[in-house]
Amino acid sequence: MKDQLVNKRPFPPNRPAHGIPADKLPRRQFEEETGGPSWVWGVHASLAALANPARRIERVVATRNAAQRLPESVQPHILEPDAIDGMLPPGAVHQGLAVRAFPLEPSELEAVCSPPDGRSVLVLDGVTDPQNVGAAFRSAAAFGARAVILQDRKSPPLTGVLAKAATGGIEIVPHVRAVNLGRAVETLRALGYLTVSLEGEVELTLSDALKDPRPVALVLGAEGKGVRPGLAEACEKRARIPIAPAMESLNVSAAAAIALYEASRSR
Amino acid sequence: MKDQLVNKRPFPPNRPAHGIPADKLPRRQFEEETGGPSWVWGVHASLAALANPARRIERVVATRNAAQRLPESVQPHILEPDAIDGMLPPGAVHQGLAVRAFPLEPSELEAVCSPPDGRSVLVLDGVTDPQNVGAAFRSAAAFGARAVILQDRKSPPLTGVLAKAATGGIEIVPHVRAVNLGRAVETLRALGYLTVSLEGEVELTLSDALKDPRPVALVLGAEGKGVRPGLAEACEKRARIPIAPAMESLNVSAAAAIALYEASRSR
Repeated sequence: MKDQLVNKRPFPPNRPAHGIPADKLPRRQFEEETGGPSWVWGVHASLAALANPARRIERVVATRNAAQRLPESVQPHILEPDAIDGMLPPGAVHQGLAVRAFPLEPSELEAVCSPPDGRSVLVLDGVTDPQNVGAAFRSAAAFGARAVILQDRKSPPLTGVLAKAATGGIEIVPHVRAVNLGRAVETLRALGYLTVSLEGEVELTLSDALKDPRPVALVLGAEGKGVRPGLAEACEKRARIPIAPAMESLNVSAAAAIALYEASRSR
Repeated sequence: MKDQLVNKRPFPPNRPAHGIPADKLPRRQFEEETGGPSWVWGVHASLAALANPARRIERVVATRNAAQRLPESVQPHILEPDAIDGMLPPGAVHQGLAVRAFPLEPSELEAVCSPPDGRSVLVLDGVTDPQNVGAAFRSAAAFGARAVILQDRKSPPLTGVLAKAATGGIEIVPHVRAVNLGRAVETLRALGYLTVSLEGEVELTLSDALKDPRPVALVLGAEGKGVRPGLAEACEKRARIPIAPAMESLNVSAAAAIALYEASRSR
């Protein structure tokens, strides 16, 4: 039983595997299994969480200084910086502000992506580094992306380091947790999106691929592995960002930023 | 005396301020003041350091597995992963390979940037986060940039986390440490570069600015502060990457990736 719990991903909320009703569980176990509250820190990330009407906030802690940046309606616990340090993971750069909030609810793919309206969709295949996923959300928000589609089981929860790197992007761009990304890509194609898999070793360049005026779903894989072959084949086009032979690849969040920029520039 | 030493930046090598000849200093003090060896870790970053003929390597440590990725000419110390962990800063993801190497020598601006040949130059103003500087080097290498110009005193040394994020980019793209970035921009203008400062609140878009076919020097500032006003004014053009109003800014390494991509795409 313990192993099962350890291996469980924290998402989605409200689906405990063991059959014990959530309100009968010990509090900590309940929170872990149902996506209970966790910390978001940093000024931008915290203010964005507080501004998101879909967020259930449990607690706000702030230094006296940082509290001045909060809206009047928010009543923070005023603490010394050290005390906030002690509540967060080691090395968390909180800038005097942290919010303990319940996780963001994932959206349904069709509800959030149809009908296509010109905005891009970002699909991340096997990207597990929270810093990279957070940075991708930040760029997605900056380029007005419609949604970020993540693998249900392999993607990190949208909290902590990821939320910090996103600087509010996770509050602005809806996310979808897809059990099967291949099926998600098929759905996006059927809805009318141009689906483009970003790869290193193909002929077509991204800027040529995006001369097609349809709204685009951009599929990016983890560094090293890239987009899985089956998923790449499910895409209508396979394109590359041209880079110098001296480098093997771009950082995945840099590639996401470039692809989202190119899609918004050419549309 | 001690305060002076504490405040000294580790670069450039071979210019101790106190007048004691370097070979009379205690070893540790000598190394700190002259830019002695430091660790570079991770497979890509380590292999790139070993492949760089300009690098003086002191020591190579590898796990038995990772050692198989080394060229035959390299004789590593074979260690268990834990032992390598213990030599590096906490949390360093070394992938079984680390190299202790003397720092990279900075280049002279004119020697490395003239005459202009179409490649871009990246200028970073007040970017102090090693992860961002490293990521910018990675993108600079990927887009065949000619040089990265850093502020002499305020930029982090090209080792550790920065080297890891650069995944070899610091070995490929020469760097310049300029005492005065304004003067560096003036020099680049005089050499024939189109100098463009990236900002949030200007009319001109980056893609319009880069319709000018000259090779470009792209000037980016730290997040929050941006390019300092005096430096921005020294640039021939001031341009923005168009983003949605919901986000205040892009991450500086994402902006660098986009700007380098746009410059290489349009040239």
